[in-house]
Amino acid sequence: VRVCAVFVNGFACKDPKTAVAEDFFFSGLHMAGNTSNKQGSAVTAVNVAQIAGLNTLGISLVRVDYAPNGQNPPHIHPRATEILTVLEGSLYVGFVTSNPENKLFAKILNKGDVFVFPQGLIHFQFNLGTNKAVAIAALSSKNPGVITVANAVLGSKPSISDDILAKAFQVDKEHSRQYPSSILD
Amino acid sequence: VRVCAVFVNGFACKDPKTAVAEDFFFSGLHMAGNTSNKQGSAVTAVNVAQIAGLNTLGISLVRVDYAPNGQNPPHIHPRATEILTVLEGSLYVGFVTSNPENKLFAKILNKGDVFVFPQGLIHFQFNLGTNKAVAIAALSSKNPGVITVANAVLGSKPSISDDILAKAFQVDKEHSRQYPSSILD
Amino acid sequence: VRVCAVFVNGFACKDPKTAVAEDFFFSGLHMAGNTSNKQGSAVTAVNVAQIAGLNTLGISLVRVDYAPNGQNPPHIHPRATEILTVLEGSLYVGFVTSNPENKLFAKILNKGDVFVFPQGLIHFQFNLGTNKAVAIAALSSKNPGVITVANAVLGSKPSISDDILAKAFQVDKEHSRQYPSSILD
Amino acid sequence: VRVCAVFVNGFACKDPKTAVAEDFFFSGLHMAGNTSNKQGSAVTAVNVAQIAGLNTLGISLVRVDYAPNGQNPPHIHPRATEILTVLEGSLYVGFVTSNPENKLFAKILNKGDVFVFPQGLIHFQFNLGTNKAVAIAALSSKNPGVITVANAVLGSKPSISDDILAKAFQVDKEHSRQYPSSILD
Amino acid sequence: VRVCAVFVNGFACKDPKTAVAEDFFFSGLHMAGNTSNKQGSAVTAVNVAQIAGLNTLGISLVRVDYAPNGQNPPHIHPRATEILTVLEGSLYVGFVTSNPENKLFAKILNKGDVFVFPQGLIHFQFNLGTNKAVAIAALSSKNPGVITVANAVLGSKPSISDDILAKAFQVDKEHSRQYPSSILD
Amino acid sequence: VRVCAVFVNGFACKDPKTAVAEDFFFSGLHMAGNTSNKQGSAVTAVNVAQIAGLNTLGISLVRVDYAPNGQNPPHIHPRATEILTVLEGSLYVGFVTSNPENKLFAKILNKGDVFVFPQGLIHFQFNLGTNKAVAIAALSSKNPGVITVANAVLGSKPSISDDILAKAFQVDKEHSRQYPSSILD
Repeated sequence: VRVCAVFVNGFACKDPKTAVAEDFFFSGLHMAGNTSNKQGSAVTAVNVAQIAGLNTLGISLVRVDYAPNGQNPPHIHPRATEILTVLEGSLYVGFVTSNPENKLFAKILNKGDVFVFPQGLIHFQFNLGTNKAVAIAALSSKNPGVITVANAVLGSKPSISDDILAKAFQVDKEHSRQYPSSILD
Repeated sequence: VRVCAVFVNGFACKDPKTAVAEDFFFSGLHMAGNTSNKQGSAVTAVNVAQIAGLNTLGISLVRVDYAPNGQNPPHIHPRATEILTVLEGSLYVGFVTSNPENKLFAKILNKGDVFVFPQGLIHFQFNLGTNKAVAIAALSSKNPGVITVANAVLGSKPSISDDILAKAFQVDKEHSRQYPSSILD
Repeated sequence: VRVCAVFVNGFACKDPKTAVAEDFFFSGLHMAGNTSNKQGSAVTAVNVAQIAGLNTLGISLVRVDYAPNGQNPPHIHPRATEILTVLEGSLYVGFVTSNPENKLFAKILNKGDVFVFPQGLIHFQFNLGTNKAVAIAALSSKNPGVITVANAVLGSKPSISDDILAKAFQVDKEHSRQYPSSILD
Repeated sequence: VRVCAVFVNGFACKDPKTAVAEDFFFSGLHMAGNTSNKQGSAVTAVNVAQIAGLNTLGISLVRVDYAPNGQNPPHIHPRATEILTVLEGSLYVGFVTSNPENKLFAKILNKGDVFVFPQGLIHFQFNLGTNKAVAIAALSSKNPGVITVANAVLGSKPSISDDILAKAFQVDKEHSRQYPSSILD
Repeated sequence: VRVCAVFVNGFACKDPKTAVAEDFFFSGLHMAGNTSNKQGSAVTAVNVAQIAGLNTLGISLVRVDYAPNGQNPPHIHPRATEILTVLEGSLYVGFVTSNPENKLFAKILNKGDVFVFPQGLIHFQFNLGTNKAVAIAALSSKNPGVITVANAVLGSKPSISDDILAKAFQVDKEHSRQYPSSILD
Repeated sequence: VRVCAVFVNGFACKDPKTAVAEDFFFSGLHMAGNTSNKQGSAVTAVNVAQIAGLNTLGISLVRVDYAPNGQNPPHIHPRATEILTVLEGSLYVGFVTSNPENKLFAKILNKGDVFVFPQGLIHFQFNLGTNKAVAIAALSSKNPGVITVANAVLGSKPSISDDILAKAFQVDKEHSRQYPSSILD
């Protein structure tokens, strides 16, 4: 049974008289996520799944931890723009615009820097430093969704056919490079 | 100077008294696009760039032509849901849901079949047949945008660093397969 | 029990783990509708009533078949803009703007032509040719609604009073014509 | 040069420092409109054309005056729901739902009664009394638009073809009545 | 069990076939509210709580009665813009813009005058006259909410701490006045 | 001349080809604001006024610094919900619901705790500790606005009349307390 911000949108989910402060509360965003994984990063999400009171309210938070050289790999939020600020360390961040330009907007961010990743665009953060990095980011949806490109393209269940992927990853001639050699090793 | 649907949203762009039927018109969607390219497909778009009167109206069309074994490779519309119908031929189509499931919803479509690709999700169409295929699709934005995953990830200008891509495309152990072998050849 | 695009808007209707590709699928849009009726046209709709997965996604399709001299009579979609393309035949189409101009924007469309009918405006399509015509149209709502002007004004249940209609259809003097004579026969 | 509610949506139209109270003000809604016309009614609108500060704010007002037996004939607001209250007199009001039901929801309203006309549906008000009637109505758009059905269908400039109208107004057999006889006189 | 405007947004709440005209109706807005209270005013609301058919339709009405020198004290609608018209009497009305300007836009309204209070801004109406006053106002939400500043700040349950309020109500030096002396009596 | 997220919403403000990464960037959120003021707090905002690329994207950030016993006094964001997380120190936070409940939802937050303040509701944060506190908050608008209740009610320019304020701040009998004594000193 879900609690809603009933005095905000009304007439939904549960009697507002029974709502309590805890319906608008989450604890634990100060704790580092476990970055012992291949990408060297961890995302701690605080959205409507964690705070029922966010229902209908169009916003959520995440904390991202990065091991040295760790990254939040290229991904998409299908329903949200993201605005991120660096709490600790240095991140190389970027997003790529849509066809036909596919222009990379990238920037090295240090502590206190803020960057915006517009809705639905592929973006990433990479920890340039030899120490861990930490960021807080906000997303313009109670339930923004995350599509990690590699997981979705190469790790879906069931798999997308190899024929489709092989043909897809022949990047058009007019683009400036071939598939990165380091992935072929 | 852009013409707007001024009698719809009012107070924008141009004096509605000067608008004419041609501001709501486009010609040529019956003509096959040129599919002589690596992906074997061509997209003819009819959105606000082609029909100024679509401004503020939240919809657009595309025609997609597919050579035999041609495909509209995995891509995303950052600002639109798509609904597609097959006019000619047979297509294998699908989309992948977001983390953590990354579930592939796929289907073989024949003439007259319709399929929905929800906003911001990676999706594709592949021509299974030995003849060309044709589809018409509608998108829920005057300006839906297209991000071809391979172009954005591997062909951006400037490039995303090889270090980031190499690490990103190590799909997590818990996913069911490694990078498709046919791309490694 | 309705299935929703749960991984898109979340927390609605049904456990997303049980959604399947068929929830995003419809079959039969290649089949001509039966145009043996007074208007000589048939609309085959594909909206949230046919595809449960369209819920919350703001788009739908229709196929319209027209007998020779058949028409999709003046009608309104109260919740959607329409964008139509002609697959076969020739159509005379138009929409009328709101007060005080009541300007008719009309155009003859041939195969491959596209036309936009802005939200809530009265519009029509008429088959000019001696052969049948076919169009595909998209609408910017999962559930656009259709108000056929004649049915709503003259065929409502119960009826709108004759006194109201008689007075209403005295078109204002400043308008360029009286009630069309062919209706008075 | 348009003034906007700049401190509300910001970054639009005009420097907010120059906005004044008059940008949010209109005078004269207590004055009866001139109902000496064929419909016996007059609408005084207060929307973004009268109050520049309504820009982006999604609401407007109208006053409607009705002569004895006068009416606000069947019409549509393509971009707004209406909520009306009777200040003086008695009105017979109604709206008709969309296909296939075309159900008339009608009611006699007396002073202080309130009725809702959902967005895009055909609706009307008729003064039942032997005295004048007055209503105030609010609409959920800064620029709701008004399509008077008779004006748009029979009085557009240029005209909709008689062939189209003649065919359109043959109401389908399954509907309960023919064209009202009083219009044919 | 709530009735919805099911033929408008569809697929909600109740079978549209069972909806009736009464679901869109309210009676009694001609009756003066009881202004025998400290503020000398009374608000009669007609929103989705009174008219179930307003669900999803984004609009509502209120009638406000003011005793001589009565007022609708400073308040906020968190989810709606308001447009008000004076039916009887004279009102001094105003709203205050957000930081840093805190500019008061105020105006004396007489019968037939209209004023707009943009969404979320603090506003008030005060009856200047020696007779009662009456206004009708529309709000751009089915469920706009009302936050009476004094009730929320000073009368919440439980109370906001005196320490917080005492510090809060030391208005910044750069503002033009101290706490009004008449409240300190 | 404003830069927009042109590849996101298109057709606005400036040629997207001239947009650069800096249009999505802000620097300095790691720096403490100056809390040497009566409220003992400082807000550093990062919205569309600081990052032009946020235009149309519906999100922004703030950093709030609190001196010991400092507070962000009761205020409202007229166009946004807020989600806040504590980076350092302990805060007593709360919001008050709308009429008729005026219920205070309050909570002591420690480092890593998160709390939601729904759109348009009066809310505050108070530093309970003997050390400074720091929070990061996100708001669901590019331009959320801030109305500090005391500034708007007591410090507007020109002033709201004392008569109005004196009457307004007589909290209704049924509320549990009178005006806090500490303000009367």
